[in-house]
Amino acid sequence: MSDIIYLDNASTTFPKPESVYNFMDEFYRKNGVNAGRSSHKLSRIANDLIDDTRRELTDLVKINNKSRVVFTSSATVALNQVLNGLDWSTIKNVYVSPFEHNAIMRTLHYLNKKFDFVIHILDFNSETFELNTKALKPNLSQNMPDLVCVSHVSNVTGYILPIEQLTEILSDYNPIVILDCAQSMGLIDIDLNKLNIDYAIFAGHKTLYGPFGIAGYINNSNKVALKEFIVGGTGSDSINLNMPEVEPYMYEAGSYNIQAIAGLNAAIKWIKQTKVYFIYKKEKELTDLLVSELEQLDGIEIYIPKDRERHIGIVALNIDGYSAEDVARVLDEEFNIAVRAGHHCAPYFRDFINIYEGTVRVSLGYFNDKEQIKYLIESLENL
Amino acid sequence: MSDIIYLDNASTTFPKPESVYNFMDEFYRKNGVNAGRSSHKLSRIANDLIDDTRRELTDLVKINNKSRVVFTSSATVALNQVLNGLDWSTIKNVYVSPFEHNAIMRTLHYLNKKFDFVIHILDFNSETFELNTKALKPNLSQNMPDLVCVSHVSNVTGYILPIEQLTEILSDYNPIVILDCAQSMGLIDIDLNKLNIDYAIFAGHKTLYGPFGIAGYINNSNKVALKEFIVGGTGSDSINLNMPEVEPYMYEAGSYNIQAIAGLNAAIKWIKQTKVYFIYKKEKELTDLLVSELEQLDGIEIYIPKDRERHIGIVALNIDGYSAEDVARVLDEEFNIAVRAGHHCAPYFRDFINIYEGTVRVSLGYFNDKEQIKYLIESLENL
Repeated sequence: MSDIIYLDNASTTFPKPESVYNFMDEFYRKNGVNAGRSSHKLSRIANDLIDDTRRELTDLVKINNKSRVVFTSSATVALNQVLNGLDWSTIKNVYVSPFEHNAIMRTLHYLNKKFDFVIHILDFNSETFELNTKALKPNLSQNMPDLVCVSHVSNVTGYILPIEQLTEILSDYNPIVILDCAQSMGLIDIDLNKLNIDYAIFAGHKTLYGPFGIAGYINNSNKVALKEFIVGGTGSDSINLNMPEVEPYMYEAGSYNIQAIAGLNAAIKWIKQTKVYFIYKKEKELTDLLVSELEQLDGIEIYIPKDRERHIGIVALNIDGYSAEDVARVLDEEFNIAVRAGHHCAPYFRDFINIYEGTVRVSLGYFNDKEQIKYLIESLENL
Repeated sequence: MSDIIYLDNASTTFPKPESVYNFMDEFYRKNGVNAGRSSHKLSRIANDLIDDTRRELTDLVKINNKSRVVFTSSATVALNQVLNGLDWSTIKNVYVSPFEHNAIMRTLHYLNKKFDFVIHILDFNSETFELNTKALKPNLSQNMPDLVCVSHVSNVTGYILPIEQLTEILSDYNPIVILDCAQSMGLIDIDLNKLNIDYAIFAGHKTLYGPFGIAGYINNSNKVALKEFIVGGTGSDSINLNMPEVEPYMYEAGSYNIQAIAGLNAAIKWIKQTKVYFIYKKEKELTDLLVSELEQLDGIEIYIPKDRERHIGIVALNIDGYSAEDVARVLDEEFNIAVRAGHHCAPYFRDFINIYEGTVRVSLGYFNDKEQIKYLIESLENL
């Protein structure tokens, strides 16, 4: 299978750094036990790895309190946990981007059946695919935001949200801000100290280059604590029928996935060694090459932000005369190129671009190279 | 670390069969992508592995509809999903055993704050540690059961619940029955066709000898469908803001943990090759040896069922003059033996046995041997 050109990194980055595979396998064989602080040696080693991984993660986003990292099994679960954990009696106006993922949109839709709030879509320019920062203040002041859920990097357009600018404008209203960093953490420099963000969601298996099975959120909030959502054993305080009221443990019921945590640990160490700046730089060069080559093709439409400095890694496109599914199928069958076709779990995007048949999504990772992009272009030319 | 005697298999079985480590590592390196039915080759291979694992699992419990397997990331999440998914307006009386795990007890306690129901403890004999089947009918008829949540094998006493007998008696009342098979599936022969059970919970990393990160439930119910609990992207039907109404996908939001599923796949194949009967037989012989040796020791109390045919794998104990924590600590520090001390996430057990300081739990797995048990006994003698 090594001759497959993998351009589906927004689904999950693949391959992983060699150290991620190695350390996961090695640690799980040697030490694949249930973690615990006051138990036997192997269990304490597992626990130390969890603590170290929390530290690596907070270090990556420049905060220093490891107990603010809450691990979950996926970013979807993290978003369910955060959104269900909010006090909805105080939330009337919720803002999202037109590109939000179903991990956010379906969860909000689910909660909207129980609670009375309005979902507003932030004003994005449908030609530049960018946040209309000028319209922001007048729009927000009409319906003051209580909660804002936005992706740092869109999994459809590759747009890098100007989060500094957005949170500065939002600060007048002091809403709860959830930033979905599934497509950004590890790829884009994030300084949570400087951002007025309450919850930063991460997915181990995407731009963090770790495995499936480990994700979560960093609680950067000074507002009220989240209510419990998933409850169960914590290996501590067993006779208490309530969850122990200690962060992060009160939000982490059940056994820790120590193999996945080992993988994430190795992945963050790889990122820090390689440096976020250089990972970004390499992927940005590949992205710019991909875009400039695609723009040479006839009959192609690409859906990326106008300001290329705000664009990374992901290009959704359509080709005249072909459905997105057909393009993806032919690339797969004839050319051994892996991309995705469809709506990319972003239910509002098709209304935003007025394209109802879906798009082809090409998404890059650190381990792609220029030859692969040239091969993709040749393949598209020979469709 | 290979010189550690691991007797903490009820927390997680360790080590795993060699094929589990090998296949996980191999599959994840070659094919570690996001699954999908109508996508590129690697994605379809991942999807086929998921389907095959569902089939292996249903085959193990002798049913034939693979779409009734719902994967979650842990048995805790599975129990949260099932319990939160029930229609609580129709549930007034809930029955549990005195040994239930906090994955059940804390979840019921959490739901009890929202919904009006009563938790009853099934009548167990505090000397034999066994279900009092004679008292069952009179007790149940006083408060007719709407929901029964019980562990197939107790993670504290190693008691094998007479589930055939229990479900037969329960059938007069037609309650919803949730059987927690975390400590039994793969170790004890289960035929879901013959049991009046609605949801059989499994944990990949325990008696199924798979890894952390994959668990779930088998929906064996003909009653109403569960409501959604965790929602999000499903890689299908993206423009629908509701979850697709197709089992099992409507209950499986987010990316599949393909590495863990690969591990579970290899694990079930190993179980079927080794045969459940022989795994049980080997563990039973070790259990009987452990019990008979422990019974020779002075000043020891063990908390196991009187009928030894209903006992497997797990022995909780206390030694006169030592706290459980001290015994576990000395075994760890002086003798390199890994056991657990505490309440084992079973909040009602201490009231049941009137021991408030916890117990030491020794728990066996397929890869333990007689020499290890003899070494444990010698170590306890030299405490």
